[in-house]
Amino acid sequence: MQPSRNTADTFDAVVLGGGVIGLSVAWRLRQRGLSVAVVDPDPGHGTSWVAAGMLAPVSEVAYGEERLLGLNIDSARLWPSFAAELEELSGEPSGLWECGTLVVASDPGDRAELEALMAFQNELGLGSQWLSSRESRNAEPLLAPGIRGAILVDQDHQVDNRVLIAALLAVVRRSGVVLYGCAASEIEISEERALGVLLAPGPGCPKKALPAGTIVVSAGAWSSQLKGVPERFLPHIRPVKGQLLRLLGNPEQAPVLGRTVRAQVNGRHIYIVPRLTGEVVVGATSEEMGFDTSIRAGAVRTLLDDASRVVPAVDDLKLVESLAGLRPGTPDNRPLIGPSGLDGLVLATGHGRNGILLAPLTAQLVAGWICDSSEPPKDTSPSRFFATRHEARLEPR
Amino acid sequence: MQPSRNTADTFDAVVLGGGVIGLSVAWRLRQRGLSVAVVDPDPGHGTSWVAAGMLAPVSEVAYGEERLLGLNIDSARLWPSFAAELEELSGEPSGLWECGTLVVASDPGDRAELEALMAFQNELGLGSQWLSSRESRNAEPLLAPGIRGAILVDQDHQVDNRVLIAALLAVVRRSGVVLYGCAASEIEISEERALGVLLAPGPGCPKKALPAGTIVVSAGAWSSQLKGVPERFLPHIRPVKGQLLRLLGNPEQAPVLGRTVRAQVNGRHIYIVPRLTGEVVVGATSEEMGFDTSIRAGAVRTLLDDASRVVPAVDDLKLVESLAGLRPGTPDNRPLIGPSGLDGLVLATGHGRNGILLAPLTAQLVAGWICDSSEPPKDTSPSRFFATRHEARLEPR
Repeated sequence: MQPSRNTADTFDAVVLGGGVIGLSVAWRLRQRGLSVAVVDPDPGHGTSWVAAGMLAPVSEVAYGEERLLGLNIDSARLWPSFAAELEELSGEPSGLWECGTLVVASDPGDRAELEALMAFQNELGLGSQWLSSRESRNAEPLLAPGIRGAILVDQDHQVDNRVLIAALLAVVRRSGVVLYGCAASEIEISEERALGVLLAPGPGCPKKALPAGTIVVSAGAWSSQLKGVPERFLPHIRPVKGQLLRLLGNPEQAPVLGRTVRAQVNGRHIYIVPRLTGEVVVGATSEEMGFDTSIRAGAVRTLLDDASRVVPAVDDLKLVESLAGLRPGTPDNRPLIGPSGLDGLVLATGHGRNGILLAPLTAQLVAGWICDSSEPPKDTSPSRFFATRHEARLEPR
Repeated sequence: MQPSRNTADTFDAVVLGGGVIGLSVAWRLRQRGLSVAVVDPDPGHGTSWVAAGMLAPVSEVAYGEERLLGLNIDSARLWPSFAAELEELSGEPSGLWECGTLVVASDPGDRAELEALMAFQNELGLGSQWLSSRESRNAEPLLAPGIRGAILVDQDHQVDNRVLIAALLAVVRRSGVVLYGCAASEIEISEERALGVLLAPGPGCPKKALPAGTIVVSAGAWSSQLKGVPERFLPHIRPVKGQLLRLLGNPEQAPVLGRTVRAQVNGRHIYIVPRLTGEVVVGATSEEMGFDTSIRAGAVRTLLDDASRVVPAVDDLKLVESLAGLRPGTPDNRPLIGPSGLDGLVLATGHGRNGILLAPLTAQLVAGWICDSSEPPKDTSPSRFFATRHEARLEPR
């Protein structure tokens, strides 16, 4: 797919970042008839590769984040048709597994907190259901005997992130999106308008300019590091480190779990995401450590301790990968989707823990803005920070 | 070093297995003027690569294993001169670090057990010394505040196993030992005498016979799987799986520990071996799992839990490798060094947890037998099993 001619290629849209967000945006823009390029040194192998792939608006809801919940639910509703269309057009599985989620209380304190959470969920009309300890263990026989009950969330599902990435790469290639496996060195600006992207020269990457009608920034945790863009237009994004583990059960045997299990253990959140392949993802820490992606013994210890406390059979699984990814965090935990304030530069970033969940909605909103000038909803618009973006640091609202 | 001629090469001795034992034996035989070959598909990358490298006869002593202790102490005494000679002749560091060992009690039960162990050590004349909790923490400030004291074993040291392997590979190459990076497919036998080794053909390995005056088996856990050898001459070796972790501290900072720390935590043994490079090895499980070398979540969890219980700062280290190796176990936990009962076939295997410690003594005994017909000590001689070796299974004495 790498164009061989060493001259300027011009595109209606150049997407910076080939993760699940960038690939989804590129796909939707191309479907609207635009010529599209994606620039990423290693498409699909950033934060999207590390993600657990939960589609969990209800079980992830947090007090004070009702507006994020609205976006998450909107995107969760888009997921089945997004996945079906992706499978049809890519010829590949999407990775979607509508398995439901169980949020488990491991001790009386966690139980009290979960009961309050369920009351909040029901107040919001989310219809989750309390299961006793026995009912929980009937649903998931490998749960630890000592668990104190659980919230059953039938509508929270998951997607195998790596299967999804393969399907998205296939569909963008098939549809004629051009993938540049290169880093972007700079965004070219003239008279307060973004004009194009300069590729960083390197192995297989000529020094090249890509003039673009619109540039979409979907560079995740790296989205505030765009060279050439005046500081006042840069989004306020910080990396939030997440460490997680990939385990493997015996593929000959039944999966350890039939649905995602989330839990609180001594106040810490843990999730255990089974795959039909026998893989089990255990995550995740949430750490403010800059761009550090090292794997720390204490994080691995805590993840394994907490997971085995909820599902003791985790001990028997093979540990195949220890990983760290960087979530793109924003001051109010909501994404930045829409015009950046600089003409020609559009943001599709800041999705925090919810990038995979929010991909269908994000792609739809970005295409709506670029192709139809439809304003994205206020809750996602980067303009909510325009008044404050000269300040060095923003506190969450 | 790979000979290019595709004909039979003849050697005075062919050593099967290029781990620390095999390389040490090859070096000593070559020093005695023999022509020597080592056959190993990946020299130095078997169990020796995984080992922690403790030289710990005193802190590892177990009730009922006094004869093993004698061998271990004899070999520990050889280590300083072995290392010095290796450094001189290889031009490489040996990895020896005479750092001492602290055996820590993490709770009152462990303390009682360690006090009994120290009494046993002193009965054997091993001269270990009890430190109070405060004295222990003065010696090693990062020990957990709750530890209940420790045995200080000044004479138990360590060697960086991977540095050692590099030095041994250098010295055997320099001295003219021929390394075949190939598997052995069979041992050729005629009239109850071993005649040579057939190499298994493969990439870079021609099908080739290596006629040999003597064949030395130093194939570790795989030593009982020699094709062509009548079953009654095969050693009774079983694999004992050990899982361990390699962590990394900040090389800019002082090492986490100044000496090896061993401990009992809830009756389980754990060791934490610091290196001057910032590496920290944490081990090890001891499991009868056949030839399985998978990394299990429960083993990693327990190692990290126990290590952080003794040295909480372990949590901050990077987890860089999770490994499993197969120790060659014998029915009585002592090695098999000397004539196998089949003419021309000599054993240097079955070293269990003590392969690196016992390498200098093993090499000396094997060279003494082959070059001078010196009988190895009765405690190591394979002949101790000759009477029983037709039995399917041997119980430890």
